[in-house]
Amino acid sequence: MPKGQPIAVPDDGLTTRQRRNRPLVMVHTGDGKGKSTAAFGVGIRGWNRGWKVGVFQFVKSAKWRIGEQTVLERPGSLHEETGEGGPVEWHKMGSGWSRTRKHGDDVDHATAAVEGWQEIKRRLAEETHDLLILDEFTYPMKWGWVDVDDVVATLRDRPGFQHVIITGRNADPRLIEVADPVTEMTKVKHPMDAGQKGQKGIEW
Amino acid sequence: MPKGQPIAVPDDGLTTRQRRNRPLVMVHTGDGKGKSTAAFGVGIRGWNRGWKVGVFQFVKSAKWRIGEQTVLERPGSLHEETGEGGPVEWHKMGSGWSRTRKHGDDVDHATAAVEGWQEIKRRLAEETHDLLILDEFTYPMKWGWVDVDDVVATLRDRPGFQHVIITGRNADPRLIEVADPVTEMTKVKHPMDAGQKGQKGIEW
Repeated sequence: MPKGQPIAVPDDGLTTRQRRNRPLVMVHTGDGKGKSTAAFGVGIRGWNRGWKVGVFQFVKSAKWRIGEQTVLERPGSLHEETGEGGPVEWHKMGSGWSRTRKHGDDVDHATAAVEGWQEIKRRLAEETHDLLILDEFTYPMKWGWVDVDDVVATLRDRPGFQHVIITGRNADPRLIEVADPVTEMTKVKHPMDAGQKGQKGIEW
Repeated sequence: MPKGQPIAVPDDGLTTRQRRNRPLVMVHTGDGKGKSTAAFGVGIRGWNRGWKVGVFQFVKSAKWRIGEQTVLERPGSLHEETGEGGPVEWHKMGSGWSRTRKHGDDVDHATAAVEGWQEIKRRLAEETHDLLILDEFTYPMKWGWVDVDDVVATLRDRPGFQHVIITGRNADPRLIEVADPVTEMTKVKHPMDAGQKGQKGIEW
């Protein structure tokens, strides 16, 4: 992680403090591991600072990643029990948060993604969260389910002070343009290549 | 994160279950963000499964990353209070865990790194932890303070079932050779380039 002086100071009329305190759109992309895990790590750090954290998972089956959910839900329940940290909401596409019915096929997945995005737009407009994690949200964009220009314009024009992290492979260049920081996780070696499947505690 | 079938099944005489349950040496390297955050995310997931987690930070000043420490220490204190999850130890180089005196200059930092590594070797031999996170451990290797061949041999021959994650830029090729998975975090864009410093909750 970088530390110290910036490489260049922009001529944007902002003080360092104003610039430091700008809300961010962060993207974790690439074929490697750690995209979501690092995003949830930022989420836990935000929880620790009392932020209202919302996680929105755009995955068909989140069963195999239940460990991640438990880990951020525990801080959320600590908040409810003791007031410690901030509130955490964790939503999975197609499980209610997008106000859709039960989905069974690809068409409905597309519908669920669109309705999920509409819900996120409402939340951004209402400034419901301090940090929104749109997990694997690059896929509905890539598949054409969600309009990339709409996403980019919504993120660019969002009110107040809302950090957004988007994870997933194949991030659209228009999303990368509006985002900062963008990190690419590249797989150098992975046990899957050597016939090893994921395991408990490490992958989920 | 990958899911599904491995690309190839190795002829190593192991069942899929045996192969799945091999202890891993994971490396998060590259110039991008998320190396440590993703490692701590795995640490929290391990805590959630009741693992004994040990974090060993090889950084000169960890002050600016206190948020990360708090976040993994909270689960550790939950374990002490309620038995939930597993125990978490968090150690910083030069702050006691390496059994060294107070360090003031570069020579002493090198000494602290060597003694820290000796302590980790002892813990690996005694199987003290289920997961060891050697945060920014690539640097003492790169700077010649810790012998890379010794690290590689120790990791390769460690007993029992101990996962190890090593983070930091410029991972030595010999370390990459013995590690699996290896992920490179690449900076595509970062606000530092546009004159923006890190901010609370996001960077620490």
